Amino acid sequence: MGNQHDFVREITNIEDDFAKWYTDIVLKADLADYTDTKGCIAIKPYGYAIWENIQKYTDEQFKKTGVENVYFPVLIPESLLNKEKDHVEGFAPEVAWVTEGGGQELDEKLCIRPTSETMFSTLYSKWLKSWRELPIVYNQWCNVLRWEKETRPFLRSREFLWQEGHTIHETAKEAEERTLQMLDVYADVIENLLAIPVIKGRKTEKEKFAGADATYTVETLMHDGRALQAGTSHYFGQNFTKPFDIKFQNREGKEEYAYQTSWGISTRLIGAVIMAHGDNRGLKLPPRVAPIQIVIVPVAAHKEGVTQKAEELYERLSKKFRVEVDLRENVTPGFKFNDWEMRGVPVRIEQGPRDIENGVVVLVRRDNGEKLVVKQEELEETLENLLEQIQQDMFKECEVRRAQKTTVAKTLDEFIKNINENQGFIKTMWCGDEECENKIKEETGAHSRCIPFKQEHLSDTCVVCGKPAKHMVIWGRQY
Amino acid sequence: MGNQHDFVREITNIEDDFAKWYTDIVLKADLADYTDTKGCIAIKPYGYAIWENIQKYTDEQFKKTGVENVYFPVLIPESLLNKEKDHVEGFAPEVAWVTEGGGQELDEKLCIRPTSETMFSTLYSKWLKSWRELPIVYNQWCNVLRWEKETRPFLRSREFLWQEGHTIHETAKEAEERTLQMLDVYADVIENLLAIPVIKGRKTEKEKFAGADATYTVETLMHDGRALQAGTSHYFGQNFTKPFDIKFQNREGKEEYAYQTSWGISTRLIGAVIMAHGDNRGLKLPPRVAPIQIVIVPVAAHKEGVTQKAEELYERLSKKFRVEVDLRENVTPGFKFNDWEMRGVPVRIEQGPRDIENGVVVLVRRDNGEKLVVKQEELEETLENLLEQIQQDMFKECEVRRAQKTTVAKTLDEFIKNINENQGFIKTMWCGDEECENKIKEETGAHSRCIPFKQEHLSDTCVVCGKPAKHMVIWGRQY
Repeated sequence: MGNQHDFVREITNIEDDFAKWYTDIVLKADLADYTDTKGCIAIKPYGYAIWENIQKYTDEQFKKTGVENVYFPVLIPESLLNKEKDHVEGFAPEVAWVTEGGGQELDEKLCIRPTSETMFSTLYSKWLKSWRELPIVYNQWCNVLRWEKETRPFLRSREFLWQEGHTIHETAKEAEERTLQMLDVYADVIENLLAIPVIKGRKTEKEKFAGADATYTVETLMHDGRALQAGTSHYFGQNFTKPFDIKFQNREGKEEYAYQTSWGISTRLIGAVIMAHGDNRGLKLPPRVAPIQIVIVPVAAHKEGVTQKAEELYERLSKKFRVEVDLRENVTPGFKFNDWEMRGVPVRIEQGPRDIENGVVVLVRRDNGEKLVVKQEELEETLENLLEQIQQDMFKECEVRRAQKTTVAKTLDEFIKNINENQGFIKTMWCGDEECENKIKEETGAHSRCIPFKQEHLSDTCVVCGKPAKHMVIWGRQY
Repeated sequence: MGNQHDFVREITNIEDDFAKWYTDIVLKADLADYTDTKGCIAIKPYGYAIWENIQKYTDEQFKKTGVENVYFPVLIPESLLNKEKDHVEGFAPEVAWVTEGGGQELDEKLCIRPTSETMFSTLYSKWLKSWRELPIVYNQWCNVLRWEKETRPFLRSREFLWQEGHTIHETAKEAEERTLQMLDVYADVIENLLAIPVIKGRKTEKEKFAGADATYTVETLMHDGRALQAGTSHYFGQNFTKPFDIKFQNREGKEEYAYQTSWGISTRLIGAVIMAHGDNRGLKLPPRVAPIQIVIVPVAAHKEGVTQKAEELYERLSKKFRVEVDLRENVTPGFKFNDWEMRGVPVRIEQGPRDIENGVVVLVRRDNGEKLVVKQEELEETLENLLEQIQQDMFKECEVRRAQKTTVAKTLDEFIKNINENQGFIKTMWCGDEECENKIKEETGAHSRCIPFKQEHLSDTCVVCGKPAKHMVIWGRQY
């Protein structure tokens, strides 16, 4: 790890300037750094290890549902990108173009994939012949590039890492079921691995993916009350299969266009973890995704046997947990405590000469600062339970904060008041008219997050126009 | 899997046209396909699963040696690429340039990384301060792009997947040790996972990496007697750390430039597996890397209970092995046998009504066609041993073929005769002069593979000029 000997790791106060607090954490916890490639970050080992844990868990869930991994080209010819009208309108303005290769100008320019619907569709069209081959459920873990004007590490980076699943099906029903199945996988990853509660719902027409019939989303709320779209799953119907000519012979021997989906989560989730859980001491990682679950810090390490006991403890706990032992000689235990708190390690173990004498260690929880004195022989069992408890408590803490920051508005005035006082999610009834949606955005800066699957009846009328309401919608300012 | 119902899967004879045989395998075993992006392939699930197994094993070995994974930008500004003279000369002709982004022409064009020495070096220069932070041992699994004129799936693709490790060290000695340590990891992966014997050695000055002091390599021999460079590890000395200003305060408090290495293996290894082991029946996968180790094919599946027994067997064996059961109803068992042989699955299990009655199954080895009748209750143990035996036998078969195709030449005439008659590796003594190396290339099309670590004394004089010899070198025509 770099910068180990920086003594001062000051972090901006989270209440004073959340954006600066966020950047401080990213840089000082060694998650990532800026690079000479504008808008692109370097993900450092500690940040990447979080991504590896997300990947591993997600990929296992994928494979249980029959997903197969592939890898398709990063470069997409312009003519392919242009095939689906809404899609190209949505993405063309933010792509990067390769125009020279091997010392020559290219006949046709190639974009770096902003997403790969077009590439997958072209290949599916080439491969698909019969209903017997369906469904095709492919996914790739890869980099993508979108030429964002304003960037922030992890949240909005020109290049980011993600997975993109692209599937084709025999029937609309089966494709729709797959769309929702993958949304459930995302909800599982975000709630159970990252300890962040989600709201599942459908995006409005205005907010859906370029080229989709329907976009489903898992929406989360950050510490400052801003919303973050944590994952999306799209149902395309035949919007791509028609222009891309993805046909198959159906069970009746007739030609038919397939039904399609796509779905993705990205390194943005690292940003979500930082912003959902972090505090003024720094990063706070849920045990299941933490690269280091437990750090051992010897106290009075100059005294005989203390370092050795720390090393023994490290060996012992490594068999069961992701553990680190901090034997740095050029910094004090106090510095180490702050340092590992800043890095968000869920449990710290302190062990000094007296603890060794008494056959105990001191455990300190990162999430609430609680200290426990534990007998050596009960350590594994206690830690196992404790890590699980921390995971649950962190989820609950987020849930409570979200509840505090969720309000109901029945009029636009109330909406404006709520969002200015409390930020957060705002629930309203809505007539379904895009004009009313635009009005809210203009007046408040809030976007519709989704039409939640769990609908509530708040009133009979739209929050803006007062006409009969069709849906309950959740709104919020977004990352 | 696509194309399941193609009845004909004819493969070109391996002795008639090896290049066409190779392409047939790639396409018909569903490993990869061509795409609309010239020179770039789509890696399909079966091919990608091989890569996942290589990745998993290699990454585990890496982590045991203290490697930490990161992810750095895919785009590298031109000014960075230009910093090290030899490096830019080596790579500039084969890069792809991004010149437009977000609808605008860029002030400085960005290349898609052909390799990332320049990006890593720039960041190391920013981060490194003290000897205490050394060594830094980072690696990334990513895509790279090189604008090759002639491409072949897996072997030479414009875009490919690889890992690139980049390390910096306090001393030259430590850096050199890391270079060789990673070469050993590669040898382990290729010999023990892929069952292909390697020769470890150093590249000549002519063949070394652009910008390196020394390049070490693991060289393999394919079925047709051509050589394939399977992995390389480079020692840079201070060639990059000086132009990139990667300095640290050493133990004496003085500023010093760090010592650097890099090392990589790629999806080219999938090509190596195909070409080292395959035969006229198709692909032949070593059990440790095979996505499917065992396939169960029910015989006379229309008879009562046969399909059910196959499914039960699948459930049972899945607990221990990577298994598939082929229950397709629209193709015959004979078709299935050929199909799975073509896909290189190490062991086939046949089970018909009579086998069920007798409490046995029939195992068929892909590598040598051998059949074994095994009692149901002994199945797991037999399979475990059999897979291990196949792994060993496949390695030995490659070793024997390599020995048959390795000759010694003491004169250039002998060299030409050997390579024309026998292709393969040719061992000679060499004076160390690049002129003699060039002469061999011109006359025979063979490149020096390496100066093997295990030197032999074949004679006193150079194979070309007759002057006193410095090294034994291995030569061969290459992929």
